[in-house]
Amino acid sequence: HVHEAVDADVDARDDWARRRRKGIPTDKQLLVVACMDERIPVEEALGLSLGDAQIYRNAGGKVTDDVVRSAALTTQFFDTTEIIVVNHTDCGMMSASDEDVVAGLEAAAGGDLDDVDVDPSMPDLNLGDHSVAEWIRMTDDIDEACAAQVEYLRNHELIPDDVTVTGYVYEVESGHLRRPGERVAEQVNERV
Amino acid sequence: HVHEAVDADVDARDDWARRRRKGIPTDKQLLVVACMDERIPVEEALGLSLGDAQIYRNAGGKVTDDVVRSAALTTQFFDTTEIIVVNHTDCGMMSASDEDVVAGLEAAAGGDLDDVDVDPSMPDLNLGDHSVAEWIRMTDDIDEACAAQVEYLRNHELIPDDVTVTGYVYEVESGHLRRPGERVAEQVNERV
Amino acid sequence: HVHEAVDADVDARDDWARRRRKGIPTDKQLLVVACMDERIPVEEALGLSLGDAQIYRNAGGKVTDDVVRSAALTTQFFDTTEIIVVNHTDCGMMSASDEDVVAGLEAAAGGDLDDVDVDPSMPDLNLGDHSVAEWIRMTDDIDEACAAQVEYLRNHELIPDDVTVTGYVYEVESGHLRRPGERVAEQVNERV
Amino acid sequence: HVHEAVDADVDARDDWARRRRKGIPTDKQLLVVACMDERIPVEEALGLSLGDAQIYRNAGGKVTDDVVRSAALTTQFFDTTEIIVVNHTDCGMMSASDEDVVAGLEAAAGGDLDDVDVDPSMPDLNLGDHSVAEWIRMTDDIDEACAAQVEYLRNHELIPDDVTVTGYVYEVESGHLRRPGERVAEQVNERV
Amino acid sequence: HVHEAVDADVDARDDWARRRRKGIPTDKQLLVVACMDERIPVEEALGLSLGDAQIYRNAGGKVTDDVVRSAALTTQFFDTTEIIVVNHTDCGMMSASDEDVVAGLEAAAGGDLDDVDVDPSMPDLNLGDHSVAEWIRMTDDIDEACAAQVEYLRNHELIPDDVTVTGYVYEVESGHLRRPGERVAEQVNERV
Amino acid sequence: HVHEAVDADVDARDDWARRRRKGIPTDKQLLVVACMDERIPVEEALGLSLGDAQIYRNAGGKVTDDVVRSAALTTQFFDTTEIIVVNHTDCGMMSASDEDVVAGLEAAAGGDLDDVDVDPSMPDLNLGDHSVAEWIRMTDDIDEACAAQVEYLRNHELIPDDVTVTGYVYEVESGHLRRPGERVAEQVNERV
Amino acid sequence: HVHEAVDADVDARDDWARRRRKGIPTDKQLLVVACMDERIPVEEALGLSLGDAQIYRNAGGKVTDDVVRSAALTTQFFDTTEIIVVNHTDCGMMSASDEDVVAGLEAAAGGDLDDVDVDPSMPDLNLGDHSVAEWIRMTDDIDEACAAQVEYLRNHELIPDDVTVTGYVYEVESGHLRRPGERVAEQVNERV
Amino acid sequence: HVHEAVDADVDARDDWARRRRKGIPTDKQLLVVACMDERIPVEEALGLSLGDAQIYRNAGGKVTDDVVRSAALTTQFFDTTEIIVVNHTDCGMMSASDEDVVAGLEAAAGGDLDDVDVDPSMPDLNLGDHSVAEWIRMTDDIDEACAAQVEYLRNHELIPDDVTVTGYVYEVESGHLRRPGERVAEQVNERV
Repeated sequence: HVHEAVDADVDARDDWARRRRKGIPTDKQLLVVACMDERIPVEEALGLSLGDAQIYRNAGGKVTDDVVRSAALTTQFFDTTEIIVVNHTDCGMMSASDEDVVAGLEAAAGGDLDDVDVDPSMPDLNLGDHSVAEWIRMTDDIDEACAAQVEYLRNHELIPDDVTVTGYVYEVESGHLRRPGERVAEQVNERV
Repeated sequence: HVHEAVDADVDARDDWARRRRKGIPTDKQLLVVACMDERIPVEEALGLSLGDAQIYRNAGGKVTDDVVRSAALTTQFFDTTEIIVVNHTDCGMMSASDEDVVAGLEAAAGGDLDDVDVDPSMPDLNLGDHSVAEWIRMTDDIDEACAAQVEYLRNHELIPDDVTVTGYVYEVESGHLRRPGERVAEQVNERV
Repeated sequence: HVHEAVDADVDARDDWARRRRKGIPTDKQLLVVACMDERIPVEEALGLSLGDAQIYRNAGGKVTDDVVRSAALTTQFFDTTEIIVVNHTDCGMMSASDEDVVAGLEAAAGGDLDDVDVDPSMPDLNLGDHSVAEWIRMTDDIDEACAAQVEYLRNHELIPDDVTVTGYVYEVESGHLRRPGERVAEQVNERV
Repeated sequence: HVHEAVDADVDARDDWARRRRKGIPTDKQLLVVACMDERIPVEEALGLSLGDAQIYRNAGGKVTDDVVRSAALTTQFFDTTEIIVVNHTDCGMMSASDEDVVAGLEAAAGGDLDDVDVDPSMPDLNLGDHSVAEWIRMTDDIDEACAAQVEYLRNHELIPDDVTVTGYVYEVESGHLRRPGERVAEQVNERV
Repeated sequence: HVHEAVDADVDARDDWARRRRKGIPTDKQLLVVACMDERIPVEEALGLSLGDAQIYRNAGGKVTDDVVRSAALTTQFFDTTEIIVVNHTDCGMMSASDEDVVAGLEAAAGGDLDDVDVDPSMPDLNLGDHSVAEWIRMTDDIDEACAAQVEYLRNHELIPDDVTVTGYVYEVESGHLRRPGERVAEQVNERV
Repeated sequence: HVHEAVDADVDARDDWARRRRKGIPTDKQLLVVACMDERIPVEEALGLSLGDAQIYRNAGGKVTDDVVRSAALTTQFFDTTEIIVVNHTDCGMMSASDEDVVAGLEAAAGGDLDDVDVDPSMPDLNLGDHSVAEWIRMTDDIDEACAAQVEYLRNHELIPDDVTVTGYVYEVESGHLRRPGERVAEQVNERV
Repeated sequence: HVHEAVDADVDARDDWARRRRKGIPTDKQLLVVACMDERIPVEEALGLSLGDAQIYRNAGGKVTDDVVRSAALTTQFFDTTEIIVVNHTDCGMMSASDEDVVAGLEAAAGGDLDDVDVDPSMPDLNLGDHSVAEWIRMTDDIDEACAAQVEYLRNHELIPDDVTVTGYVYEVESGHLRRPGERVAEQVNERV
Repeated sequence: HVHEAVDADVDARDDWARRRRKGIPTDKQLLVVACMDERIPVEEALGLSLGDAQIYRNAGGKVTDDVVRSAALTTQFFDTTEIIVVNHTDCGMMSASDEDVVAGLEAAAGGDLDDVDVDPSMPDLNLGDHSVAEWIRMTDDIDEACAAQVEYLRNHELIPDDVTVTGYVYEVESGHLRRPGERVAEQVNERV
């Protein structure tokens, strides 16, 4: 009967629309942590379709407390078993010196940044002895930064040990991913 | 001459690959703050193409200190003038009680969460008097939550006053965006 | 020989063009009863192609004597074995009160509706003790209405007992079918 | 700003999903009355897209009291100004004699049809002095039948006089519409 | 080696370009005899691709001495084993009376047609006792005409007995082929 | 109103289906005379669509009395003002000697060809003093043959003087048309 | 895990970008030697995709010392095992007499060509007793020239004996390849 | 008339097929000198279509005496006014040392390379005092090599002074062209 096929469609839609409530994980059981840069086609670069993976993105693709919160939730409660970190060349986090960034933010705040609530819904959250520059997390070398984020996640207490964590650098200039440190473009211009 | 067209291509590629270093903003001068859920086609829902906007995504699409950091950087240094917040129905942040989530994380950490570094690169960062439940930021009502995130961003000291901030709820069950509180599906099943 | 393939085409066309005379049923042996609303893509929503099903549509997708006539004919004489009822949200039958509709029609008729022939080819057909409002069949709740139409068809003497009857509500706001009473959109906005 | 385009999308969706409540007519202000036969591609034959027209369909495309109800509602309350009737060749209403149809239905009902409620939600609705055969509305000549339905609608008290009513016969054997009586296929096989 | 695939292409081209010299028949070993009318999509109607069949076309799709010449050549020398005749409705050969056509041609020739060479390369070819009207071959009934052409070919001494000959009438008004005499459109407008 | 567009469609179909009766010429007022060879994509080679031109095709694309009949009818009665002749390389008419063809046909007829009716509907039609070989019309040189057919048509009494006649040779080996005698392929293999 | 598919992509890209350094041959182990003419779609004519073959092209597709250098390198060091030579009709090397070309170049050089360095990076390279006309390598017959280039490569000391060498002439006028001397177009215009 | 459009097609084909004889230059009056590497999509990288440019390709994209011959012919006799040189990363000319290449070729020749005819049709052509390694033209730095080839062409006596010469390096690893020395990939991995 036709209604059986229709019922299957109705059920599939219910599974999609109430997936979280019904405890259905992402199709690939994957969390991606990537930079928010407008030039990174995250899904295309990793071969992902809608529904395959949760995608965390922030300035720099850095492992912050918000990443820890998000990754802990999905690995502990949503059956996610893999994390991929994607950083990229020409990142905004490499476009200025620490001093310039801090000075700019102080000018914006109209004074010392110590008085600014960095988290508007949690005014008591504070940086302890860390400087604002540390909080901003500028980057010196994108390959080293990528490897470091992978290590942070691999070692964190709230991420289960059997979660697989890997990292890649997306080359804006080539449209390809590379493993950290494996810069093909460095090796192809001169005699072997 | 043909080389003039080729030169224009070479230059356009340089602008794309070194956009941040050259101080070129995103094509729409837009930052999106959205949930990391795998069912949200952020670019399609907002009509965006690669290069148009930076896209911040975390668990719940909540305004955390990482959002503040990312939004302050792009509005202060990258000429971004608009922020759009996208939350969605059936969010994972609505799939459990505060108690269950905290209990689960404590079990994962093997004890009290107070001893866990929530930010692996900034061990001194601390929640002050806030509870872990507050840090996790579970949601009771998605429309209220969306409106609240918009207010947090509008009022924050590190976001310039002339930045436009709006918010939408993406309906996973319909594939459409709505303005917070404007639930079409509530109003169409019974006699006027 | 080529003429054999041509003959097969000629025969297939004859089967199509004289299908009713030759006693060939619809491809899916299905009758759909749906609302005449312009926003309902009946075939697409049910996954039907030309030739698959007969499609009855009237104001509200209500089981009237015309539905009974049409359904009796196709189940008794055309080998139809399944009926699917499709109602929808934001139906015109929910857009006004009984009083307003009756008053409007009386104004149109220029007086009492009792004098109007409701069926132009059968002037003696009459509503008995039923009011014009009952004849118009406004709807209070679309899910209840859908379930009621299914029951009317299941229980009718002129519809064979082994005909399968099911009903769905098409959500204009989401583009999906639901089973009566299963409103996904009600359940996805707040904490579980 | 990008949110202006998004707001326009949100509003367009609201107009679509609550079109009836908001008093928005169909895009072409058109009602089609057609046969429910599975071989009639109503929208394609008339050049209509989703949203253009309400489509009433029953066995034979006959003007019954249900057509009058539906047409009165849409012309009086939904700003519909045009009606097109579509009948078709090889209609099921031409596939048997009155006697055979009545006998078949009586067998199904297990006795006299006078005891059958023809309208399950209006048990008092009755055919007066009309026979069951009249109620079934078999057809002798499809072109005459089409012209008759147009006249019924043009002359009915509940249909405003300024509503335009036209009728066509869809040729199942050719895939084309014709005006009633204009049978091209009759005129093309012999010498002028 | 790549040159092997290239050689195969070179050989296939040679087979195509010198097909007749090499004694290769048409792909379907088929000759079609059809009317030259501009509305007949001969290849599409018969499901033929380039290379499949030789296609003879003249005014009316009539079996003339030129058809006999062409059919004899292809069946005797080119391995053709099937002939399909395609006539069509609204043929130009049915658009006037014999008298009008003869009168028109006489006016064109400026006198008696007996003095006109009907075959410019064979001035001695003559109609014997046949009238010009017979030579023109106007048609009274297209289905009878089609059946007659099939018989002419089946019985001709220069066409081998084992050649299969069939005929169809292409309905310009429906876009379908029919077998001679099987006019679907005649049978679908009135009660059985 | 929608019915106006529908009426236009109905009228366009009537013009197409009764084009000849209504005296409507082909869209390009063109007759093509071409060979019946299966490798000639006549419409594509000349840039023609369905409805543009009548297409006469026989063995060799030769101007026979059947061509004269067909061309006279269309130029005198159907408003055709142009004729294009298309011959082609590797024609079947160049694949054997006169003697071989005549001998083969005699074997088929089981004796002298003088006793064979060359036109089955006109048994009195006779070749006068012409030999069967002349009737068959084998070709020695395709470019000369093409030019000759053009002359036959230009000079014939039944073809109006103001009809434009041109001829082309379709090269099966290249897929291009050439003007008679302009063999590009002869001129491109050796030093100028 | 998703990272395994990503790693495979990363490795495939590395193989592509460092193919020569890693000693990976072309996909078809093929070198093509063709004319530089703008009308030769070398890859399409031979059925090649990017990566399949190295493609040497010069004026005339002649085997010069530069061809020997290039072919020796690829067959000795890059695992190439097949060479295909592609010459073509209407080649520029056939468009003038030796005298005209030499005179033109002398005028350009402003005097005797003996004083011109023919190789700017190797001023001592000299033509020995060869004339400038020999160096220019004009062509008299394209099929002979093609066969000669194949022989030069087959017999050269620096090309391994087991390398397969074949040659084709691309017909600009037909868009097809032919084997040298097999001119289809010569054989299809006249009676066999 | 239709024959006018056909004649235009016939003429266009003649212009294409006899372009060189008729003195018609390439569509862009351009010569490209590129490496024969199988990974370089020369036409796509430069935005060229069939007919636009002559394309010289050899091992390394080096300016040899064969390039001079080819470039002199096209600029002096075929109206070419622009030359573009395309070298590329990971070139085969950078994959070994001079010594290894010479040793390999000597092994192939079975002795001293001085006895080998480097040009099979010009046995007297000799390298003068140049070594075989110079003749092979290995590369140390691809950007320097590209710039050098441009200079060789700009300064050569047989290339007119008003010919525009430019050079690009195609990055196999990114799929983009760069100007010599402008290595985007070097500048995007570290803090500014």
